[in-house]
Amino acid sequence: MNFIKEIDGGFSVIENLKVSGAREGKFGVSIILSPNSNASAVFTSNKVVAAPVKYTKNVLKKGIVSAVFVNSGNANCFTGEQGFKDCETLVELVSKDLKIPSDEIAIASTGVIGREMPIDVISKVAYESLSKLGNGPENSLAAAKSIMTTDTFPKECAVEVTLTNGKSVKIAGITKGSGMIAPNMGTMLSFIVTDAIVSPDEINKALKKAANISFNMIVVDGDESTNDTCLMMANGASGVEVVNDGQMDPNFREALNYLCIDLAKKMARDGEGATKFIEANVCGARNLEDARLASKAIISSSLFKSAVFGGDPNWGRIVSAIGYSGCDLNPDIVTISIADDVDEVDLVKKGEILAFEDTPYLERAEKIMQSKNVIVNIDMDLGDGEATAWGCDLTYDYVKINAEYTT
Amino acid sequence: MNFIKEIDGGFSVIENLKVSGAREGKFGVSIILSPNSNASAVFTSNKVVAAPVKYTKNVLKKGIVSAVFVNSGNANCFTGEQGFKDCETLVELVSKDLKIPSDEIAIASTGVIGREMPIDVISKVAYESLSKLGNGPENSLAAAKSIMTTDTFPKECAVEVTLTNGKSVKIAGITKGSGMIAPNMGTMLSFIVTDAIVSPDEINKALKKAANISFNMIVVDGDESTNDTCLMMANGASGVEVVNDGQMDPNFREALNYLCIDLAKKMARDGEGATKFIEANVCGARNLEDARLASKAIISSSLFKSAVFGGDPNWGRIVSAIGYSGCDLNPDIVTISIADDVDEVDLVKKGEILAFEDTPYLERAEKIMQSKNVIVNIDMDLGDGEATAWGCDLTYDYVKINAEYTT
Repeated sequence: MNFIKEIDGGFSVIENLKVSGAREGKFGVSIILSPNSNASAVFTSNKVVAAPVKYTKNVLKKGIVSAVFVNSGNANCFTGEQGFKDCETLVELVSKDLKIPSDEIAIASTGVIGREMPIDVISKVAYESLSKLGNGPENSLAAAKSIMTTDTFPKECAVEVTLTNGKSVKIAGITKGSGMIAPNMGTMLSFIVTDAIVSPDEINKALKKAANISFNMIVVDGDESTNDTCLMMANGASGVEVVNDGQMDPNFREALNYLCIDLAKKMARDGEGATKFIEANVCGARNLEDARLASKAIISSSLFKSAVFGGDPNWGRIVSAIGYSGCDLNPDIVTISIADDVDEVDLVKKGEILAFEDTPYLERAEKIMQSKNVIVNIDMDLGDGEATAWGCDLTYDYVKINAEYTT
Repeated sequence: MNFIKEIDGGFSVIENLKVSGAREGKFGVSIILSPNSNASAVFTSNKVVAAPVKYTKNVLKKGIVSAVFVNSGNANCFTGEQGFKDCETLVELVSKDLKIPSDEIAIASTGVIGREMPIDVISKVAYESLSKLGNGPENSLAAAKSIMTTDTFPKECAVEVTLTNGKSVKIAGITKGSGMIAPNMGTMLSFIVTDAIVSPDEINKALKKAANISFNMIVVDGDESTNDTCLMMANGASGVEVVNDGQMDPNFREALNYLCIDLAKKMARDGEGATKFIEANVCGARNLEDARLASKAIISSSLFKSAVFGGDPNWGRIVSAIGYSGCDLNPDIVTISIADDVDEVDLVKKGEILAFEDTPYLERAEKIMQSKNVIVNIDMDLGDGEATAWGCDLTYDYVKINAEYTT
């Protein structure tokens, strides 16, 4: 896709945008200032919804966002009336400092559930973050870092896309994982800004589609968070429209998909405790839904994830996971291979098992399972359904991190 | 339930029944000899089905089983035509040795998927096992031990039940876990024999109901096996009918439920790598299905399981798990408590959060989370739905065991 060019600098590539980040201990605050932007978002489908999610849903009714406040360290979830008051307090703080209307400020939080917000320390970090707003690459990086919880590296992506009419626009985004990652909308905090001109409705439609093949196709632990938010803003700084006669430019849509998939893969790669990255490609499924079920079952299987961690070529667990995924499957015609960056080996070819003990197939499989990137390819031979899902191995460190999270 | 008495001795309490077990390395063989018994079974719903499951489904069409052959160490799954031939070879071996018709011999396997059966070693262990058939408690224990894979202790249960007409019958069973345990029928190997007179159809109906509130309510890792089999036989040795005028004696039904729940809880307690036992009780759900969803979501959450391992009172993860379970939930009226064998503490009472930081509630919760048995009680206050699910913590050892399984 030569109309998409990945560029460095994160949010700094977008004009009329300032961002910042600051941190004190486990509490971080990132600010995104993009005055008068069209905006929409996708949120968690968890029935327990954090206060900032409810708050921001209300803000987005107007379709205009000028700033986003994000804090890490406390999810402000299951915090009752006080949770809403805390949202209002923080939004008011940002509104006064930046002199923008409070009903154009979105808010998102990530961290422990069921603890009241430590409003004093978060306010303090908020002021520090506000004082650092800027448009350099270092500002974007600071913002990406300040929303991290158990993430081990900041996650940014920026692309320049040449539209079908020859004009170009940019899209940039940051995201954070890295536990409570399950495929069911949002699944994390993610903030995307484009300099294109796009209406809130068109943002919503494109973002939903992009999230569906990116953020919704990664699994770390199968736990869906109460705070998942993926918010996208279009500040129009490029002066370029990407929707004409009701049709979104296909190149823009592709670029947004590309960016979301890039951010999603970074999240999967940085899943809590992860040492390896897993990609599951399914083709030939009866339909799209079946392909999604099968690919997600593979990367969600605790048993297969543990086998990847140990470099154990226990490919029977792939078969078993597809079998219970709910998708249609005929074991007699399925083809299964695994690959890494240098080799690909068939384990099962049109139903015939190749990778029995003491075969070169199993030896090669063993080597591949020891790679940093393990790719599973399945051809069901039943139809046209295709999907890809991403995940990571299950490690001692996942357990360790989550055994000690609040303490 | 004073009409149910738990008794020692496993299968030895049943007359006209001989069992045995033998092992060589990771390969074990158990034999259950119960001539001319009515029989039925529930099986895995995985679409990839092991050869012995297909084989035994066919045997059960007649409704009569005289012997069961069980091997551990190899699942005989995804083994093509050879897998069926191996089933036939082993059944033939048993048939000749015991002089019973081969079409009355059921077979079950557990172990690695996608490897051909090492038929020589398994045949050898089979002959050894056959030579040890007997009806003492030590024979039952040997059978329970020989079906183990990563289980750390053998699992037996036997009960005597006084029927409503004053007569009594017995039921005994053995089972094995301990990974690939997910709530979707069977979920393990389990063999149950009663000395009551019951038809195959009646066994089937009662067994399905019992499995639904026992084996189907435990989760270790959410991976459903390709070999799950729960087979029940009635050899009629007591001479007592338990179905009269088409109605099964309610006490017999209760006793079967009791036995299955006991075996299921033992599996949960012995989940791979487990150090702690978790019970989730949900009441007040909109309906039964909702109660099952919520209770299983709690014990399935990798995050909550890790928190239990670490003794971390991160109760927000309980809330989050219920929220994404798919059940109906109103956070404003829910009541959540956790308990161990000595204390019970409310975390959330009718929607009001009590267990904030620096409260005695959270301190007590912390202590409970460090117990060997952690019980979660949820009252949704929405209806009459009630369910209980059982599981275990997620530990370093789960990862270790499954990172090195085939090697």
